[in-house]
Order: sequence, then structure tokens, then C-alpha cells
Amino acid sequence: MREKLRVLVEDNTTRKGKLFDYLIQVLILFSLIAFSIETLPNISKETRAFLDFFEMFCVIVFSIEYLLRIYVAEKPLKYIFSFYGIIDLLAILPFYLNGTLDFRALRAFRVFRIFRALKLIRYNKALHRFHLAAKLVREEIILFLIVTGIFVFIASAGIYHFENEAQPEAFASIFHSAWWAVVTLTTVGYGDVYPITAGGKIFTFCILIIGVGIVTIPAGLVASSLSKAREIEEKENEDKLIK
Amino acid sequence: MREKLRVLVEDNTTRKGKLFDYLIQVLILFSLIAFSIETLPNISKETRAFLDFFEMFCVIVFSIEYLLRIYVAEKPLKYIFSFYGIIDLLAILPFYLNGTLDFRALRAFRVFRIFRALKLIRYNKALHRFHLAAKLVREEIILFLIVTGIFVFIASAGIYHFENEAQPEAFASIFHSAWWAVVTLTTVGYGDVYPITAGGKIFTFCILIIGVGIVTIPAGLVASSLSKAREIEEKENEDKLIK
Amino acid sequence: MREKLRVLVEDNTTRKGKLFDYLIQVLILFSLIAFSIETLPNISKETRAFLDFFEMFCVIVFSIEYLLRIYVAEKPLKYIFSFYGIIDLLAILPFYLNGTLDFRALRAFRVFRIFRALKLIRYNKALHRFHLAAKLVREEIILFLIVTGIFVFIASAGIYHFENEAQPEAFASIFHSAWWAVVTLTTVGYGDVYPITAGGKIFTFCILIIGVGIVTIPAGLVASSLSKAREIEEKENEDKLIK
Amino acid sequence: MREKLRVLVEDNTTRKGKLFDYLIQVLILFSLIAFSIETLPNISKETRAFLDFFEMFCVIVFSIEYLLRIYVAEKPLKYIFSFYGIIDLLAILPFYLNGTLDFRALRAFRVFRIFRALKLIRYNKALHRFHLAAKLVREEIILFLIVTGIFVFIASAGIYHFENEAQPEAFASIFHSAWWAVVTLTTVGYGDVYPITAGGKIFTFCILIIGVGIVTIPAGLVASSLSKAREIEEKENEDKLIK
Repeated sequence: MREKLRVLVEDNTTRKGKLFDYLIQVLILFSLIAFSIETLPNISKETRAFLDFFEMFCVIVFSIEYLLRIYVAEKPLKYIFSFYGIIDLLAILPFYLNGTLDFRALRAFRVFRIFRALKLIRYNKALHRFHLAAKLVREEIILFLIVTGIFVFIASAGIYHFENEAQPEAFASIFHSAWWAVVTLTTVGYGDVYPITAGGKIFTFCILIIGVGIVTIPAGLVASSLSKAREIEEKENEDKLIK
Repeated sequence: MREKLRVLVEDNTTRKGKLFDYLIQVLILFSLIAFSIETLPNISKETRAFLDFFEMFCVIVFSIEYLLRIYVAEKPLKYIFSFYGIIDLLAILPFYLNGTLDFRALRAFRVFRIFRALKLIRYNKALHRFHLAAKLVREEIILFLIVTGIFVFIASAGIYHFENEAQPEAFASIFHSAWWAVVTLTTVGYGDVYPITAGGKIFTFCILIIGVGIVTIPAGLVASSLSKAREIEEKENEDKLIK
Repeated sequence: MREKLRVLVEDNTTRKGKLFDYLIQVLILFSLIAFSIETLPNISKETRAFLDFFEMFCVIVFSIEYLLRIYVAEKPLKYIFSFYGIIDLLAILPFYLNGTLDFRALRAFRVFRIFRALKLIRYNKALHRFHLAAKLVREEIILFLIVTGIFVFIASAGIYHFENEAQPEAFASIFHSAWWAVVTLTTVGYGDVYPITAGGKIFTFCILIIGVGIVTIPAGLVASSLSKAREIEEKENEDKLIK
Repeated sequence: MREKLRVLVEDNTTRKGKLFDYLIQVLILFSLIAFSIETLPNISKETRAFLDFFEMFCVIVFSIEYLLRIYVAEKPLKYIFSFYGIIDLLAILPFYLNGTLDFRALRAFRVFRIFRALKLIRYNKALHRFHLAAKLVREEIILFLIVTGIFVFIASAGIYHFENEAQPEAFASIFHSAWWAVVTLTTVGYGDVYPITAGGKIFTFCILIIGVGIVTIPAGLVASSLSKAREIEEKENEDKLIK
């Protein structure tokens, strides 16, 4: 019995296991859509009632799934404290904690439901290659995060120096300037804050010419390491065929 | 006779076939320009009359071409229900449907004429390499579309949580916030909506540092896989030369 | 005598030839700076007089250089009608045409002086690798320009359909909408035009998810082909060493 | 004694050396945070007093470190005039110069403290690969900076020509237009200046289609050369293992 359940819940190579996984995935997707619809202003009483019912249904299914996963796991504690175990719990916990806390706290907890989205990743096998690529460029990405951090700091401190007097509200401190620095270096450029003094503009000019690439380099690194990961994978498959 | 027409219409290695293809391509281009000019406000009666005449001319030529393609095809039904067959039909259908439906519906149908642009691709041989590259990175691109989707959802839900109270109009629901999320993560940053609370700004800060790359990674993947596709092609050509 | 001048003007491997090249480059740079300063509003009479004098000096030097290049060239006509020959002429022509045309036409001609900037490239040897890389990805870049063109057209026609009624000024025609399409797809996003209807926003959502990469792919292609070009160059150098 | 100190200060392979390095790094980080907090408006007297005290503490520690580094260096003068020697001095100098200059000059000097951030890099070993990659693509990056410079100039001169009459304030000169050119070509697009004439828009259209990649190519070059640097490193490690 327990072995049968284990195949159903954990093994997605069998037909039943696949069906189970797809059903859970679809339910996660629908519960996320329901979660989004709930935030719409001016929804009718009937819709809200239906959403509340659907929410309860999801929580029941996810709870059963969670308990099943603990039951079939060889080391239940290892599952419970694994990354996905915690996410699975966080997806259902807010519902059960409603009663014990006051109504307003409920909303804050509900945000944790977005972690359900991560459950979608769980079932994706293509992630293997991504993990391989991430391992290949981990060091470079950490280095670039540090360089980006330093760069954001220099940009913030510099623009604060140039613009603080002219725009004391927008560039009130280095922390306020950091908002400008990130929005500029990522090239989002909302246009809510921008330098107006000649000095600030020339400084931004230099920062942009040097720095615009720094923020996009990690993306390029991931892209090129994914090509590398594919090559490694192909080589491994070839080696297997030879054997 | 039918064989001669088949060479003219389908075979673009002969001189006549090439000429036919180029003429059709030029006509598609001109019909698209005419379609664009039609949308200009305040165009004179004479211009509109000429455009209507040109439109009719195009439809007649494209109709003849469409019928010819069916006539010369070995399996007419296969062509009719192929991707290009449907596009070829959509390029002429709106004109014939004018009479049967009321005048206002016409405008909606006319939008389908933009599919003619895709006919331009049909004749481009360089696409082969692109198809090869697309096949190489299909899995990664699907994975990144999923990751992007999850990321957009987390960004939308998070910013809704932080900004809903301060800006109840711009961040009215998770769906409204998704507009902000996409405009921000693609680094377009129109500036019509942006966080104003400290919490929302810090959240955006984190989202941008982590997420700005995620949206640009697929582009990098396609670029690097195109290099790979060129290498494969070169190897194939070398192998042919050796034989 | 002519041989000596040829070495001075065309051969930048000798010490004198190098000096000549550097002096011309510096003069080009200064003439560009002078050209920029001339456009500044409220410059004093003395400055303008100096700039006019410097302009005359530059034109004289560039004229002598141009005549020298014709004199020392083995096939003078080939040089005159070459890309750089035409640019060299365009750099001095506006000055001589001043007298024959009225004063207002002068300003339009002056814009051609910016072509002098291209002369700076002429002397750069590192361009060889770039030319090699450009040849490697020429086909893909042409294909992507076509795809980008089609994409911009579809985006323009689509957003015109969705936004024309709501914003008849900003999206007055497909041509007006093309401005939005380019500013959005290149992720510049000034914020002067953006969709406001739900349909237009959802359309933009889709266009951005699919299309944001298309515009950046050529850059990735150039970057990866430059790596390839370096490898080819290294191999060639190794082959030479072996011989 | 001097040898013991040398191990502590310069050798970060021993346990004591590592601890020393981490402590210095943490102090640098905290002093940067303190520097940022100081810029906040409306901070209480107590906080300011604490920050002043902490600043003094940092300067004392950094001064001792600086003197130690001179003391243990084999060639003290070489260290003093090295890149890091100058940065180490700049991190403490503003504090000692306070007394000799008037109060307002103090603020300008304080900006140099941000160079302390660069000290954080000093201790990072992963930089080796980055240096290797930078050396690989140095020439290409210099070439692209030149091309970017020319492109920014052409864009500035062109848009000045088109927009100067319509927007005499925003596009007052080529220098003013250069602000627009950089903000546009880096795709930041604040939206404070943008073309409004048809000519200016068509010009921007062309500039964007051609130029948007040019600014992002260096980032792609660095990313691909980092992959190359990793390959070189792996090969070197393999060669060592074989020996």
C-alpha cells in the first residue's frame, strides 16, 4: 500500500505518477489565478464565495498531498525540513493559522501563498541543465553581484554629491540615491528621478558608459554557461552510448 | 502546363521562379505600406480611392497566386491547412467577407492583413539556420518562459502587497501590478507606474538585481545557439566536401 | 619625392607615417569638439572668431591631406570614389560651398562634418577582427533586421488597433504607432506614449515577453562572433609560427 | 616579529591572516554604511555623535593597518605608490586633512571615502579569472568604446539638427543633445528629453535600430571571454594534474 502511494506521489515516470503530478500542477496554477482574482477590487459576493470555497478545496488537496509526502518519504524529517517541504507547508499553513490570529494579520500571511509558484518548478526536469550551468558560473555571478554592489554604492554616493543641493527631496541621502542608481543601471529609467545639474549629468554619462554592461553581464554568463552545460550533457550521453 | 506553373510558383531555383517570388514579395511589401497609409488621419479622397484600387489589385493577384498554389500542389489539402496556406488565405479573406458582414466588422478583420508580413519570411532561406538554433535551445527557452512567468507573478504579488494601499489605482490588483512587473522586468520603464513607498522601492531593488537578467537570458541563448548552429552547418558542409 | 610622401601619408608602419596619422587624428578630434562648441547658445564674439579661424585652419590642413592622398595614390580615381575618399571630401566640401549658396543652406551642409568622426575609424587596426566577425554573422544580422522589421510592423498595427480610439493623437496611424513600437521594443521607454486600455496593455505584455529579446539578439550575435573571430586569428597566428 | 606581522597582514592563507582580512572587510563595510547613514536628513544628535565616534575608530584602525602594511612590505615605496596603497591612503587622509582646511571643503573630500569599497575587491581571489578575461577582450572593448563615442557624437549632432528649433531648451547644443543620446542609446530613457518632430523621431528610429546593440556588445564580450577564461583555467589545472 505504502509502496503504491510512493509510486503515485514521488515517481513521475509511471503513467499514474505523471497524472498525479499534472493534476497537482494544474491545481497550483488555478489556485494562483484564484489568488490573483481575489485582489481585484469590486468583485461580486458570489465570486468571493466561490473563491473562498475553491481556496478551501485547494488547501484540503494540498494538505492531503503534504501528509502523503511525509507518509511515503523514507526519511520524513528530511523531507519536512527540505526546501520543497517548507514550501509545501507554507502553501497551506496560512489557511490554518487564520483562526488563531486576528483578521488583519491574515492578509500578510496570504502573500506566502505565492511560494506555491515555486512548486511548479519542482516537477520540471529541464532544471537539471540549469543547475549544472548555475554551478559552472556561481563564482563569477557572486563576483559580479559584489562588483554591482560596489558600483551601485559609488553611483549613489556620487550622484548624492552632485544632485543633493539641486534636488534635496529626490536625492535626500545615499539611500534615496540608491533607488536612482538601481533604476538607472538596470536601464529601467522610470523618469521619476534623474539628474538635472550639469555635474550630475556628466557623472551619469560616465556611470552609464562604464556601468550599463555590468548589470547585464550575469545574464550573458548564464546564457553562455547554459550552452556549455548542454555540451557537457551531450558528451555524457555520447559516453554512455559508447559504453 | 501544370508542371510549368509548378516550377514558376513553387521552385525558386529557376530564373522565372525567382522573378515570380520577388514580384510577390514586392507586392506584399507595397500592400503593407498601403495598409499603413490607410490608417493615416486626414488623407485626401483621391489617395483613398487609389489605395482602395491598389488593395483590390493586390487581392486579385494574391487570389490568383493562392489558387495557383492549390492547383500545382501535389496534395492540395495539405497546402490549404498548412501554416502558410492559412496565412495566404487570411491575406485575401477579409476582402471577400466585406460584403457579407456590416461595415464596422470590416476593421477588425483588416488586422489579419498584417499576417502578410509573415509571407515575407516564407521566401527567406537563411531561416534554416535559425530553425536549427531554435531546436537546440527550445527546452531552455520554455524553461525560461516558465521562470519568467513565475518571476512576473512573484513581482506582481509582492508589489501589490507593498503599493496597493499607497497607490490604489495603479496597483489595484495583481493583474494591474503585472503591467508594472512586465514593464519593469523588461527594463522598458515607461514611468506611468512606479513604487513610491520605501517598502515597494526596496522590493523593486531586489527584484531588479535578481530579475533583470532573467528576461534577457533567452536572447543570449538564441545568440549563442545560432553560433552553434553555424558550426554544425560548417561541419556538415565539410563532411560533404570530404565525400 | 612622391615615394617619400606616399610613405608619410599612407604607410603608418614608419615613425614619420605614424606621427602624421596621429596629428591628423588629433586635429579631427579637435575639429569635432570645435564643431560641438559652435552649437552652444550665447557664446562670445571672441570665441566664435577663434572657432571660425580654427575651422579654416582645419579645412586647409584636411584639403592639403586630401590632395596629397590623390597625388600619392597609385589609382587616384579609385581613391576618390572609395568610401574614405568620399568622406575625406565631405569633410572639407561644405566650407568651399559656403559662398555659392545662401547662408541658411550652410547649416544643413555642416551636419556632414560629423562624417569626419568616421575618419577616426580609418586608422584603427583592431577593426580587422571586427570586419571578420561582421562577415561571419552578416546573414543572421540581415535575417534579424527583417524579423525585427516584421515585428515592429505587427506591434505597430496591433497597438494601433487597440489604442487608436482611446488615444487618437498618440496612436493616430500605424506610422505614429511605430514610434511607440521602436521605443518599447528597444526597451528605451521614454514614457511619452504608452497603452492605457486593458487590451493594449495585454497586447504590449505579449509583445514584450516575445519580442524584447529579438532586438538584443544581434548584439549577442556580434559579441559571440567576435570571440569566434579571435579564435580564427589565434589559429592563423599559430599556423604561421609552425611554418 | 616583523615576519609574524607580515603573515598576519599580507598572507591570507593562514588562519590568523584570514581572520585579520575578514575583520578589515567587515569594518570597511560598516564604515561605508555609516558614511551612508550620515547623509540621511534629520538624524538625531546622538546618532551623529555615535557616527562621528565610529568614524574616528575606523580611521584609527585603517591608519594602523596602513602603517603595518608599509612596515611589513619588502619595498615600502612600491606599496605606497601602488593602486591599493593610494586607495588605502585616500581612505584615511580626508579625516586628517579636516583640521587644516575649512569645514565646507570637508564634504568634498569625504566622497573619496567611497574608494574604500574598492578595498573589498582586493581580498577577492575570484578576480584572477576576471583579469584574464579583461586581457582577452581589452582591444575589442577599446574599439567599442571608440565606436560608441563616434555613435554618441553622430546621434547628438543629428538630433541637435532635427530638434534644436522645436525644443531650443532641451537640445540647446550638441553637448545638451549628448545627454539625450547616452540616455537613449543605453536604453535608460528617463523621458525628460525625447524628440517631438517627425524628422527627429525617424532619426531616433534609425539610431535605435542600428545603435541599441553597440552599447550592449561590450557586456556580451566580457561574458563570452569569461567563459573562455574559465576554459583556459581548467586546461591549466589539468596540465598541472598530468605533471
